[in-house]
Parts: sequence; C-alpha cells; structure tokens
Amino acid sequence: MSETNTTLPVTVPEEETAALMAHWRAANYLAVGQIYLMDNPLLTEALRPEHIKPRLLGHWGTSPGLNLVYTHLNRVIKAREKSALCVWGPGHGGPAVIANSWLEGSYSETYPDISRDADGMARLFRQFSFPGGVPSHVAPGTPGSIHEGGELGYSLSHAYGAAFDNPDLLVACVIGDGEAETGPLAASWHSNKFLDPVHDGAVLPILHLNGYKIANPTVLARIPEAELDALLRGYGHDVLYVSGDDPATVHRDMARAMGTALDRISLIQRTAREEDIAERPHWPMIVLRTPKGWTGPATVDGLPVEGTWRAHQVPLPGVRENPEHLRQLEAWLRSYRPEELFDRDGRPRPEVMACVPAGPRRLGATPHANGGLLLRDLPVPPLERYAMKVDRPGAALHEPTHVLGDLLEAVMESTAGRRDFRVVGPDETASNRLQALYKATGKAWQAGTLAVDEHLDRHGRVMEILSEHTCQGWLEGYLLTGRHGFFSCYEAFAHIVDSMVNQHIKWLKVSRALPWRRPIASLNYLLTSHVWRQDHNGFSHQDPGFVDHVLNKAPEVVRVYLPPDTNTLLSVAEHVLHSRDYVNVIVAGKQPCFDWLTLDEARAHCARGAGVWDWAGTEREGEEPDVILACAGDVPTQEILAAALLIRRHLPRLAVRVVNVVDLARLLPDTKHPHGLSDSQYDALFTPDKPVIFAYHGYPWLIHRLAYRHTGHPNLHVRGYQESGTTTTPFDMVVRNDMDRYRLVMDVIDRVPGLGVRATRARQAMEDARLRHHAWIREHGTDLPEVTDWTWQPLPVDTGTRA
Amino acid sequence: MSETNTTLPVTVPEEETAALMAHWRAANYLAVGQIYLMDNPLLTEALRPEHIKPRLLGHWGTSPGLNLVYTHLNRVIKAREKSALCVWGPGHGGPAVIANSWLEGSYSETYPDISRDADGMARLFRQFSFPGGVPSHVAPGTPGSIHEGGELGYSLSHAYGAAFDNPDLLVACVIGDGEAETGPLAASWHSNKFLDPVHDGAVLPILHLNGYKIANPTVLARIPEAELDALLRGYGHDVLYVSGDDPATVHRDMARAMGTALDRISLIQRTAREEDIAERPHWPMIVLRTPKGWTGPATVDGLPVEGTWRAHQVPLPGVRENPEHLRQLEAWLRSYRPEELFDRDGRPRPEVMACVPAGPRRLGATPHANGGLLLRDLPVPPLERYAMKVDRPGAALHEPTHVLGDLLEAVMESTAGRRDFRVVGPDETASNRLQALYKATGKAWQAGTLAVDEHLDRHGRVMEILSEHTCQGWLEGYLLTGRHGFFSCYEAFAHIVDSMVNQHIKWLKVSRALPWRRPIASLNYLLTSHVWRQDHNGFSHQDPGFVDHVLNKAPEVVRVYLPPDTNTLLSVAEHVLHSRDYVNVIVAGKQPCFDWLTLDEARAHCARGAGVWDWAGTEREGEEPDVILACAGDVPTQEILAAALLIRRHLPRLAVRVVNVVDLARLLPDTKHPHGLSDSQYDALFTPDKPVIFAYHGYPWLIHRLAYRHTGHPNLHVRGYQESGTTTTPFDMVVRNDMDRYRLVMDVIDRVPGLGVRATRARQAMEDARLRHHAWIREHGTDLPEVTDWTWQPLPVDTGTRA
Repeated sequence: MSETNTTLPVTVPEEETAALMAHWRAANYLAVGQIYLMDNPLLTEALRPEHIKPRLLGHWGTSPGLNLVYTHLNRVIKAREKSALCVWGPGHGGPAVIANSWLEGSYSETYPDISRDADGMARLFRQFSFPGGVPSHVAPGTPGSIHEGGELGYSLSHAYGAAFDNPDLLVACVIGDGEAETGPLAASWHSNKFLDPVHDGAVLPILHLNGYKIANPTVLARIPEAELDALLRGYGHDVLYVSGDDPATVHRDMARAMGTALDRISLIQRTAREEDIAERPHWPMIVLRTPKGWTGPATVDGLPVEGTWRAHQVPLPGVRENPEHLRQLEAWLRSYRPEELFDRDGRPRPEVMACVPAGPRRLGATPHANGGLLLRDLPVPPLERYAMKVDRPGAALHEPTHVLGDLLEAVMESTAGRRDFRVVGPDETASNRLQALYKATGKAWQAGTLAVDEHLDRHGRVMEILSEHTCQGWLEGYLLTGRHGFFSCYEAFAHIVDSMVNQHIKWLKVSRALPWRRPIASLNYLLTSHVWRQDHNGFSHQDPGFVDHVLNKAPEVVRVYLPPDTNTLLSVAEHVLHSRDYVNVIVAGKQPCFDWLTLDEARAHCARGAGVWDWAGTEREGEEPDVILACAGDVPTQEILAAALLIRRHLPRLAVRVVNVVDLARLLPDTKHPHGLSDSQYDALFTPDKPVIFAYHGYPWLIHRLAYRHTGHPNLHVRGYQESGTTTTPFDMVVRNDMDRYRLVMDVIDRVPGLGVRATRARQAMEDARLRHHAWIREHGTDLPEVTDWTWQPLPVDTGTRA
Repeated sequence: MSETNTTLPVTVPEEETAALMAHWRAANYLAVGQIYLMDNPLLTEALRPEHIKPRLLGHWGTSPGLNLVYTHLNRVIKAREKSALCVWGPGHGGPAVIANSWLEGSYSETYPDISRDADGMARLFRQFSFPGGVPSHVAPGTPGSIHEGGELGYSLSHAYGAAFDNPDLLVACVIGDGEAETGPLAASWHSNKFLDPVHDGAVLPILHLNGYKIANPTVLARIPEAELDALLRGYGHDVLYVSGDDPATVHRDMARAMGTALDRISLIQRTAREEDIAERPHWPMIVLRTPKGWTGPATVDGLPVEGTWRAHQVPLPGVRENPEHLRQLEAWLRSYRPEELFDRDGRPRPEVMACVPAGPRRLGATPHANGGLLLRDLPVPPLERYAMKVDRPGAALHEPTHVLGDLLEAVMESTAGRRDFRVVGPDETASNRLQALYKATGKAWQAGTLAVDEHLDRHGRVMEILSEHTCQGWLEGYLLTGRHGFFSCYEAFAHIVDSMVNQHIKWLKVSRALPWRRPIASLNYLLTSHVWRQDHNGFSHQDPGFVDHVLNKAPEVVRVYLPPDTNTLLSVAEHVLHSRDYVNVIVAGKQPCFDWLTLDEARAHCARGAGVWDWAGTEREGEEPDVILACAGDVPTQEILAAALLIRRHLPRLAVRVVNVVDLARLLPDTKHPHGLSDSQYDALFTPDKPVIFAYHGYPWLIHRLAYRHTGHPNLHVRGYQESGTTTTPFDMVVRNDMDRYRLVMDVIDRVPGLGVRATRARQAMEDARLRHHAWIREHGTDLPEVTDWTWQPLPVDTGTRA
C-alpha cells in the first residue's frame, strides 16, 4: 500500500478527457437505467412502456455528480497507485455508486449473478429498488461502502474515522450541500484539528454544490463565493474550485483539481513524516459546483428540471403512461450514446475502462470498506492484574470506571505499535475517570497548545471533542474500516446520537446477512456519570433512556450490560472488547461503589447474565423464597442489598432471594433475543408466582416491556427512575424516585401476604426513616449518616424459624 | 417597546467604567457566595469552616464571563431603552445569572423570600445547589431565562427563535467555546440567512472564548485569529473583538464593542425597514476572549487554576477541611471588596446599580422570557370548511396531511398581521404535503435567489433548513417567547432531536410547577413520511420509536396521537393548536388513506381517545364479542379493517369488536397518565378476558409497556414494526413485519378457541394469500391487485347465527 508520488501534469491530454467523459457517460447511463428499465437494457430496440418498471423509485439528482467524482477518483488512484476509499455523503444516489462498481467489475465479483454483460446489466437494472432486490441508497450491500447516506450528516466524520491510523489511505468524502446544513456535518469540519499527518491518512472533502435539496436551494450554494471561501478557509482548508455545466470543461478542471489536491496531500504528509514539522497543515478540499440532475431532462411538462430541485428523485415520473415522457426518457438514455460505451454483449468498451484501476485499488474492492478483512484480535490483558481483591461482599468501595481505565490503559499500551484502538469521548474521558489512559497515550490534538496543557499529543489516540456526533462518527468510521474502539459518554447525552446509532445498528443488521461482509469490532459504549449521580448538574443530565432506545432495535445486534461493581465491569469490558458486530451498551458509575463479587464470581455471574446472589439472600435449601429482590445497575444493587439487610433486621423470618441482572436482554424470552431466558429458566430465577421487587437503573417500564411474556410477570413490581430530579444528594435522588431501600422494604411488605403485626411495625419504621431523611437533608443539605455510613453485613442478623 | 437610537460615544467615561466594574465585582462576589457560603454572606466576620456548604457544587469557570456580559447588556439596554433578552449558552453558570437577577431586583420580585438585603443574600447563597433549593444551572426557575444550558448546543437557535417576529427585540446570545464544538450549534450559525431585518428582531451572538471545556482546550480558542475571523465572516457576520485579562481594559473595550454592535444593528434595521433594501445584512457579533475562572484563585495547591480548565467547577474544593483553601477563598471573596458594593444591610450600593435598567427592561423581568404573558389564542378556523364529506366509511381516499395543509394555510393567513405562527421543517414541508401553506406565506429566505426558485420569501413564515436541530431550536425559542408553531418531520428523523425534546419536556415539567411561569403554546410535531411508506428510501428511513422516547418523559407534558384518517387528523390538529404546555406528537401519513369517520364522528372519537367502531364489528347488542381487533395508526387501521372483512367472509359467525386508539396514552392506567383509562374503562373497551389482536403503528412492545397493568393484558397480542424493511411496496412492508391482514386473521384463529374446521380452512386461505403476495411481488414488483383494489364493504357479508 505504499504510495508513489507521481505528479500529474497540470494539463490533461485530450484523449484522457475523452476517456473520463466516456466513463462518466457510461455511469450516468447505468444510473438512469437502474431507475427506469426492466428490460431492453442496451436500447437495442425502441423503448416501449413494458420496458419500464412499474414503480419508479430512486434519486437521480445527485447521481451525475457522484459519477463524476467516482470517475476522477479512478483516474488518480490508477495513476498514482493510491489506496483509497470514498464516503458518499449523498448515499441516496445509490444508482451512481452501484453503476461504477459494476463498471469496474467489483460488483460482479461480489454478486456473480450480476455479470458484467448484457444479461447482468438487465439484472442490475431490474433489481434496483425492486422488491427483493437492492435498496435505493448506498447500503451495506454496495461494494466499497461504509456509509449508508440515507440519513444525512455523518459522511465527513465517517471519513475521518476511516483515515485515522491508516497512513497510506486516501479517504475522499463527497458532502452534499444539503447534508452540509446538518449539525453533525457542520461540527465535523473541525475534525482536521485531530488528524495526525504522520500516523493518519488523508481526508479529501469534496463539497458538492448542486444547489438544491428536496424542495429548496441550499444555503452554501446561495451565499457569495467570498463568504463560502472564508467559511471553508475558516474550517482550516485550502480550497480548490471546480464549477460549470459544460462537461468537457468540468472534466478538465476536475482532473486538475484532483491532481493538485493529491500533490498537496503528498507534500503535507512528506513534510510531516520526514521533517517532523508540528504545524497543523491546511489540507486541501474541493468545491464542485455542477447542476443537480446534470445531463438529465432540461424541462419536463414545461417546467425546468435539470439544475433544479425537481431533478431530486425521478425527473420523468409518467413514463409508462405518458408517451412524451417515454420519448424524453429514450432521448435522455440515447444522449449517452450507449453503443459507444458498451459492446454488443453489454461489456464496457476499453475507452470506458481506460482510467479504471485494478484489483483492490478499485473503490468497490478496497478491503478498508470491508473492515472485518483487516481486523485483528485486540490484546486484552488478563483481568487478574486489575481486579479488586474481594474478601467478602460489600467490604470495600472502588470507582468502577477508574479501574476500567487501568485496563483500557493496558490495551492502549499494547496497541501502541499497531495503532488499531482508540477511545473517544465528548471532553469527558477524565471526568468519567478513565484518565489512566493518558499514561499510555495522549489526546489527539493538532491545534495550538500552551504550556499549561496536559496530555495533548499530536499522535494521541484518545479523541476528545465536545460533539457526541463527531465522536460517534469517528468511531463508526474507525470500526467499519477494521479497527477497535470505545466510547465513554455521560449517560443522558448518549441520546444526542440516538439517530446515528440507529443507522449503525441497521448497517450491522443488514451486513450480518451478507456473507462477504466480514464481522467488525463492536461499537462499545460506556454510559457513566449516570442518572443517579448528577450532583453538579441535576435534572438536565438525568436520562437513562438510551438503553430503551437501543433495545427497540435488531436483537441480533444490541446488547446492554449493567455491571453492579468493579469486577463485573471488568468482566463485561473484556467481553465486549472481544465481541463482533454488536452495539454493546455498558452502564456503570464512576463514583465509589461497593465490591460485591470476586473476579471469578464476577466472570461466572456475567457469563450467566443474571443470577441469584446466595450470600445476600435468606432462602433455605429446597424451599421457595417468600419474595425476590431483584436489581440491575450499581445504585439499584446497593439499595436492594440495603433493603435485604433491613428485612433481615425487621422481618427476620422472611425468606428473601436476591437476584442481580447484568445482561438486560436476559429478561426477554429466548424467542425474542439470543440472550433471552426460556420460561423455565426465568421461573427458576424469579419463580412463577412469588412477588418480585425489582430495582432498576432506568425507566421501570422497560423491565415490564422486556419481561411481559413470562409467566411470573404479574408478580413483577419495578422501581426505577421516574423523571424526578434536580441538583441534590445521591440518596435524595433514590428517595425522590421511590427506589430507596426504605421504599423497597415497604414494597415487600405490601406484596407479601400474611406478615402480621411485625410488618406493620416494620412499615412504620421505614416511613419514619424517610421522614428522617427529609428533615435531615433540609437541615444539613447532606444525606443521613445511617445511609452514608451504611455497609453490607455479611452475617444474617437472624434467620430464625420461618413463620 | 420602540427603540430610541441613541448612539453611545466611542469612548466610555471613566466613572462609567468604574460603575460597570463595580456591578461586575458584585455579580462575581454573589456567584462565589452561592457556590460556597452557608452563612456570613457579607463577610462581616472572618470566614470559618462552618460558614461553608457541606457539598460544594456549581460551575465557577464561566461565571465571570457571563457576569461581564450581563453588566454590559444592562448598560446598553438602559442607555438605549432597548427591549432585550439574553440566552445564556453556558447556562451551567447558574450562579452568575441568578446573581445579576438578584442585583437588578427581578429575583426578589419573583421570589419575595429572597429579598434584596443581607437576609435575602444569605438565603440566596444557601439555596443554590442545596437540596430543595435551586439547581446549579440556569433553569426554568431563573427569571429572564428561556434556556437551560445544561445540555449544550441550542443557545443560538433558541436566540433566533426568540427574535423571529419580534422586530423591536434584541436577543443577545452567549455561546461558550465548548458549546461551539457541538453539531447543533455549528449548524445554527446559518440562521442569519433566515432572519428578516424587517419583521424580526436582532440576534447578537457573543462567542465567549474562555479557552477550555471540562478538561481540554477548545478548538475555536486554539486556531489562529485569522482562521477564526474567516470562519465567522464565512458564517456571514461582521465581527468585533474584545480580548484581555485586565478588567478595566476589557470593560472599556466591551462597552465600545456593545455600542458599535448596537449601532450597526440599528442601521441594518433602519435600512431594511425604511428603504426596503433586500440585500442580506452582515449582522454584528462579538468575540469575547477572557480567562476561564477570571478573578478566581490563580493557583491552588501549586497548580494553575485561573485561565485553565481547572477553574471549570469549584476551584477550591477542600475549603471546609483545608485551612489554606479556606484562606484562599476568603481572600478571593474579599478581593471584590464587598463592603464597597453592598451597604450594611446587604443592599447593592448606588454605584453598583448605576447601569442597571428598570422595570420590564431588566433581563430578569422581560415578558419575552415568560412567553405565556404575551401569548394570544390562535385563530383556528372551523374544521367544517376542510373536513371530508364521508357518506360511509372507507368509500373515498384522501391524503390526510394534504388536507391538514389547507387548515394550516388558513391559520397562517389569519396570523399574517399578528405574525405569531410559524411552521418549521427540514426541507420537507412540501414532501409532507403541506404545500398549501405557500398560498398564505413563503419560505423564509435571505440568501441569494434565482428565477427558478419557488415560494422563497424574505418575509416568509415557513422555515426550512436541512437541520432538524435548527428547526427544533428555532421553534422552541419561538414558543418560549409566547408564539405558536408546528414542526413537520419525517418520522424516522425525529430521533435526531431526541435529546433536544428531552430538555424541552424537562423545561415544561419544571415550569408547570412555577406559578409565575405562564403556560406557553405546545410544541406540536407532525411525524409523517412514516415507517410504512418509505417506498423511495427504505430501511434507513424506518423508525417509529420517537413515540417510545417521548412516552418515557413526564406524563403531564407528553401526548401522542395517531389519527387513522383525514378528519381525525383535523380534529387532533385543532386540539393541539389550542393546547398549552404540552409536547404533542401526531403520527399521520401523507399517502392516500381511506376516510373512516365524518367530522362529527372524528371529533367524538378523538375526544374519547379510543373507542369501538360499531360499524366495523359484528358483535351483537348485549353479548360479549369473541375477539377484539384493535388498531392505532393509519396503516394498522386499514389492515385491521381488511382483516375484519376477511373474518366476516371466512368466519361469519365470529363476533368481532373493532377498537381504534387515537390517543396512545389512553392505554396507560389512569394512575400513570392524565389520559389513562381506569381498569373498568379499559375492560369496557377491551374486555377483561377476550383475546385482543392489536395492530400498532410502531414497535409492538410499546403497547405492552403501556397496558401491562390492566387486567386483560395477558390476552393482548400486538403486531407492529419489527425493524424489518427495505425499499419495497407498501403491502410488502406489512407482510415483512407480520402486520398484514392475512396474518392478523391467522392471529385471531390462533387465539380464539373452538373455531373448528372452518377455521382450519380460513387459516389455509390466509397462508395461500401470503404465498400469492410473495409470488406476485417477485414477478411484478407491485402489490397484489386484491390488496391495491381492496375497499371496505359496509354491509356484513353474513352475521348468521353464532356457533
């Protein structure tokens, strides 16, 4: 993959322009064909209504621009023997990218039934947007793609993610002027302050101003040139302009601009790598201004189409019914002169292929776009080195994410040479207690530095920018190109990327069904600084619903873990770092938390995903418990254990089982999720008929939504976050949401029948404790000493004889 | 509220600078006091540990900058008799905004127990971040605020929303350099291409470069000045710079910059309003570069703090235990010379108050920040004008959102003079079939235009930008300042604003508990181009989960409606347009949909929220039905009715009840949502023991999560979207997700016992129909004629005698 820095001549020979234009015409022809044709692919006969698809679906408007870019990337890749990848921001222009892949042969290699001949062309056309065929957008099934492009905004961050730690790779990125209006895209321009010219590859943004969105002009196409130029230079770029609607001129100018851009990239990289210059370079970018729907019908039914928003989808909508539309379509298709482009058998003629590279250099064949091909196992060190020693449950406190930081440091350290692991976060890595990472690497930073700065590093692999969108986009691009990563985020603000994670899960779901797509490393979230501990920030920072959001998605892809202590967090982290093709969500606190399990116990518990904590319960061998206290999450686990202790003191004869759930999908039936429990497994844990008091980290109804199919569901009573919070103490938070130990004991009393007068007294004691809390906090502003000093008592106070 | 365009002298008199600095010192003192002090507010005695709060929480770093801006806004507001509002992007600097409100008196007017004297100051300090007191961020309880500032990114779009249609209002907006890295903020800079200098007020962005986030430098503070300048000019601004760490110099420069900015704003507005100049102006903005934690401790424990990220929260963390920290805190507080700022009784001295405006001009007292004070009822015309005539159910098809467009057009028309209604959407207003709006107004647009453009209008009130974030931010700002609006959005991409709507719902929830906050117009979403009809776009555009997300939030705020036809959509729309303090989510299709109900029936049905459609069922008076077919959403309703028809043909003796649910919260128990049903109401609709086959628009488990507490829940069997989709036909979508009519009939057969051999034959017929579908679509790429030609048959085929 080494690069030969052949510099292209500034003028492009006439015959080369002709070849570029032939390739472009071929790609345009194939794009139109996909949108319209069922039959007669080479126009060997006059076009008739029965050749036309019954449903005309697809996006023509952006396609000629994408075809132009693909054609010119082909040229520089071939001439310079570059290793390249392209992210197609306007990925709804699926016909264009598919057309080019078919032309270069990568499509037929991936899908042998779509051969590179007339028969294959007919199938290529027919399958597009046809039920059971291929979707209208660039999708996982499109060779060479890592980016769907249906939801706009993520192309540039994906491109940077692909370029990180790929020093020899050129990542071109087409950004539509519609997409450029989105927040995520607008933020991601500043990614160039994080691109290391030594260890990273190059990103070449190509801002395509075709002027219109669905129904409106775009902002960037309608501000003065000088303003646009200032903006892009303000983003830190050296800008090259290509503009026009005369194909020959645009092709010549585009070839020159591409050549210049690649020359400048080479120079930047050489300077940085050979001369160790620390100054942030001004990377080149291209502004390409061409008409929307270029080369399509100029007017339809008397209204302008080419160069307007009307070219967005299908410019001629009535082809099957309207003879004039049919005539226009035939003229449009024939304007590309297909007979000059394809031989009698439908194979592209040599002139069309003159600029197309070969083998894995083809954009549709690069292994970087099928990252699993390049993926190596991550060296995760033995957990024993980091695990807490636990003599007995609840005797010591540790900060789980702090210890996780030590583990991640080791992973970071051991990948220092291979550089295939990054940790991203929106300015929260240290706040989330992962600062041990800085012993192994620094924070990527190419902007200015001051003496007071800490851990900034031109070559760092911790990525921090105050944009969850950019973090997510970087990480997705990094993973999709065959590397590993970890995203730590404040729990509430994971919602900022709800829509992005949707698209990534959809991508993985579809990819899993494609045998040629190799599994990639999972996208791992650590959600911390969670809902129960927002002492500084209060209500705006309290939302545990990202888990709910993710669990709506494909069960084969999503996994949610709530480790209750440090060793379980380590065990979960080890698991997710080795996993493939998942989105793993880990919810774990950064505040001191009791150690409950030894490492061995933690591993066994996490492997089961949910289990009985015998040492915490009071049930007797061979007898059913009277009540189950269940918990998921660190704070709920603490409150459940405190409740178990109170029950031992106040209701010593009650047989209590304590169940902890780490893997939330265990609560689903096994028919609904690969980790789900069968009915008998569920009953074995929770019993079919005893009351279950469940303290859950997030919104309580999520537990019902997961467990409703199980027999015991009517006995399930869940406490959790009920959207009640402010800047207050940790214990006040659980009281406000009725998940405190006292309320949990009251719940037990309310649901276990026949407890008698002792229960009445216990209930009163619980109510008194809550009143004590309210009085104390009003007076002192802190939590009750009986709560802050609470520790787990391993020996039963009194198990007595059961009533 | 008219403005007198007094131009300030370019030099600021010495005594005025002194007064500005005194005010600023007072605000800084009060900010530090809030973070630290329980007692001894005026430092009348030496500071002792017991004066210090037990939990030190809050954000000092941004506070001196906010105090500086507040002080200088005061000055220009007073001098120019401006009506102004400020959006505090770094709203986590709660102590600063509260301090200024207390100084100007608006705090004590809002909260009389926090009087403007020593006692009040003591309470002001104690309540801050104290359990039961006020939260640490700017929050609904903060006078003068419309913006929480806990979640970063939305300040500038809020500011523009506030300025639209408020021609005499100045909206200042402080943007932190951390916030500036977020996507939503980055996108919102282009809002100036949508600000009408004639009918809108002015937005004055103040980019505050204090250099650091939680733990990192900020990008914008570390790029070269020339690059920053290019960027901001590229955003279309005329930039004024204020920079330094010498208070006197910065105050003088800030006064000058504020004066210049307001002069330019006046000139722009005068030119546009008096001379009708159409050219987009370059609005002024200010870049303010001052140290983070300015005037705080320079170093703590030997490490630099002032001017670094270490000043972000509480610079001296150990004050109660560490005598050196205590000493530093006392020196810090005394550095503001409180005795010069407050009299013996704790009242601000005249010099401090010299620049502070009076009455409603005070930032903490402007009615624009308590929009309900200014809100007028929206003139919604009689629905009769727009309603479809329905002779019998299912006889005609209409596009529901198209008809809604006619209604919205009338609202737009009738608010042409008052200008207090806007429709926002990410380039989808026409795609969502609301184009009738353009008969009443155009699309707001101040950038360049071409002859081919349609409906662009410098004074338009339809707002389109391809950024859901910006649309949402604009609309929130518009509503919070007392106006009305409507957001139409592709259903799947509403998730882009998940996190924003969270914050708005939280704002409304807290506001509702504040008697002084008057109700504002609801935030109304129309989610259309929904999951079942993504013919062009496929899987990436399919996600019905926004409803799930919203229903996790405060039940007193959230409402979800799924009108099954055009007249029900009109009825729902009328309701939400009149409602207050809600977030209303309407899910409705834009594709042709059968009319089921007359307007009167629709109104009655929507008022009930859920009801039996007698005309569709076959149950007999006084007898229980055998099965309930329930539905929510337009496509599910069609499939359920088709299933009902199939049942009549194949199982004529089965007594079927059809229930339609419009208001999704009806499914909750009445203890959990104000719209919830009591157990007996639920049983009356769904029976306690008969099988219910429920076709739901979105994820099926949402229905279980809502209904699980009801007695009949174990009989509830829900079909819905199961995350299975691609570019395919409408009917194939329901088949892929097992929500088609044939599957629903099979579900009935599987769940109603004792149907005998006729059921076996019916089941086979259904399976055959599904096979027919698969074969047809493979062959033709379209839906089965028996599906596309299907219409509702009003007369029962055979009700016969029941078995």
